[in-house]
Amino acid sequence: MQTIFVLVKCELGKAYDVAEAAVPTVEQISEIHSISGQYDLLMKCYLDDGADIGHFVTSRLQTLPGVRDTFTMMTFKAFG
Amino acid sequence: MQTIFVLVKCELGKAYDVAEAAVPTVEQISEIHSISGQYDLLMKCYLDDGADIGHFVTSRLQTLPGVRDTFTMMTFKAFG
Amino acid sequence: MQTIFVLVKCELGKAYDVAEAAVPTVEQISEIHSISGQYDLLMKCYLDDGADIGHFVTSRLQTLPGVRDTFTMMTFKAFG
Amino acid sequence: MQTIFVLVKCELGKAYDVAEAAVPTVEQISEIHSISGQYDLLMKCYLDDGADIGHFVTSRLQTLPGVRDTFTMMTFKAFG
Amino acid sequence: MQTIFVLVKCELGKAYDVAEAAVPTVEQISEIHSISGQYDLLMKCYLDDGADIGHFVTSRLQTLPGVRDTFTMMTFKAFG
Amino acid sequence: MQTIFVLVKCELGKAYDVAEAAVPTVEQISEIHSISGQYDLLMKCYLDDGADIGHFVTSRLQTLPGVRDTFTMMTFKAFG
Amino acid sequence: MQTIFVLVKCELGKAYDVAEAAVPTVEQISEIHSISGQYDLLMKCYLDDGADIGHFVTSRLQTLPGVRDTFTMMTFKAFG
Amino acid sequence: MQTIFVLVKCELGKAYDVAEAAVPTVEQISEIHSISGQYDLLMKCYLDDGADIGHFVTSRLQTLPGVRDTFTMMTFKAFG
Repeated sequence: MQTIFVLVKCELGKAYDVAEAAVPTVEQISEIHSISGQYDLLMKCYLDDGADIGHFVTSRLQTLPGVRDTFTMMTFKAFG
Repeated sequence: MQTIFVLVKCELGKAYDVAEAAVPTVEQISEIHSISGQYDLLMKCYLDDGADIGHFVTSRLQTLPGVRDTFTMMTFKAFG
Repeated sequence: MQTIFVLVKCELGKAYDVAEAAVPTVEQISEIHSISGQYDLLMKCYLDDGADIGHFVTSRLQTLPGVRDTFTMMTFKAFG
Repeated sequence: MQTIFVLVKCELGKAYDVAEAAVPTVEQISEIHSISGQYDLLMKCYLDDGADIGHFVTSRLQTLPGVRDTFTMMTFKAFG
Repeated sequence: MQTIFVLVKCELGKAYDVAEAAVPTVEQISEIHSISGQYDLLMKCYLDDGADIGHFVTSRLQTLPGVRDTFTMMTFKAFG
Repeated sequence: MQTIFVLVKCELGKAYDVAEAAVPTVEQISEIHSISGQYDLLMKCYLDDGADIGHFVTSRLQTLPGVRDTFTMMTFKAFG
Repeated sequence: MQTIFVLVKCELGKAYDVAEAAVPTVEQISEIHSISGQYDLLMKCYLDDGADIGHFVTSRLQTLPGVRDTFTMMTFKAFG
Repeated sequence: MQTIFVLVKCELGKAYDVAEAAVPTVEQISEIHSISGQYDLLMKCYLDDGADIGHFVTSRLQTLPGVRDTFTMMTFKAFG
């Protein structure tokens, strides 16, 4: 499994709607948080080993209704 | 009370209109400044303890006519 | 409970040592990931309601040996 | 009067000490907040008209013990 | 006189048209350079003392056809 | 020859289409990678000495269908 | 093979020395460019599939003499 | 001639000293401004065609006493 975190900026006023709709729609999403700062949401996703992360983000997350921008953080190793 | 600062980018040419309209519209806003840098406005807001800040920013500030982008800074403690 | 995510930049070459030492040292940390981008680590922490987050970050995380810089993201609501 | 906001990054673990020491030391500071994000503190300062803001920031704020970095936001007009 | 530098992002493919049209249109602009990085153009402007810089940027520069985003840098003192 | 790297943000969900279409369309592009972070693609381009890089980026890359934003990095010298 | 790009900031005045020393020292580096912007160098590296990228960056690149900061970009797919 | 703009961050409290010393020391510098934002100074420099800009910035500007960080913007074409 590969774990990624994706910061998501949503259409104005739509962040909570995006979050509520994304969880049941995209099975790879395990949790979403609304956050402070430049982005509206932080999504944690689990992908199969070998999955193309760039393709997942552009084809599955960027196409969710209300998503406006994404910032992808790869994880390399988990501790704790 | 929780204090937050929100940097706001407005539709081109609309920053002063947004600022003038926001003050009487959103009671949680105590002051707005037009500023240098990447954003047009800095808004200081007071929210009730326990208020959902993410919900306030997305539903009350991002939906103001002319707002294009927001950056939320939480405050944890005040000095001075 | 309040959930925060903290991006951490470490002294050069020390990121994995910092991560391994932080987990057993700071009870509020639930998970740490080494990540791509500008920062070395992403830490997820759970704090008691009412805890001063700014004080926690500066006094507990910034003082961990090998930490060089931090970026704090508050979460407002969890989905999923 | 000119109003400026200065984001301040402090030496690791020193943000609250810096804030407590700065208020009585620098008369131009009216309020300081510890904040989320990349910086530790947000300082609001009032300067006399005609004061050289660059000189104030570098000679009065950057020289406070424990200050590590600053980001200056000018304000042009206040609303509300 | 107050000197400001404004980084400008233009509609895709329009940066050179914006630059050529801006020089004769906005008398406060003294020079424009196309640049590397996140923005397309760097404009140097001279404003009268006491002019509201925020108002100038939003009403005169942001409204130029083809401008998409601005980043304003105030200057405090000139050397050399 | 001048070598430049251009970070490209694409319309939502279109990054792979943009990459596939750009390679045969723009002869100066030698390789494209989909990447983590704030941008979707990293393009490496070779330009003739004396070519106007700003003009190339705005007229050839920014006008590719599906491109939304660019960030240009000049190279000065190659090693290795 | 996994391809990564790493932006590197060097100790002041040392960027060209770092670049010249890195190429023969770290076999995973295929090319280095000195660049415009916030960082001094852009390194392209090839790692074995399954290699821990976070460990490579922190243990092999951040420990090169003269390196001061790194920013890692993962690539997901190559085009062209 | 090639024109570049370099944003410079100085050792704390030293920005004005750096600016005053740089003008007579580095002949390529034509003007320096102290500025708002993340950096302390903006330097405009003229280099001979064919000069290695990366080498100039790292060997001539980064080595000025009191300089802490630089951000280089290339210009491609001048208007006005």
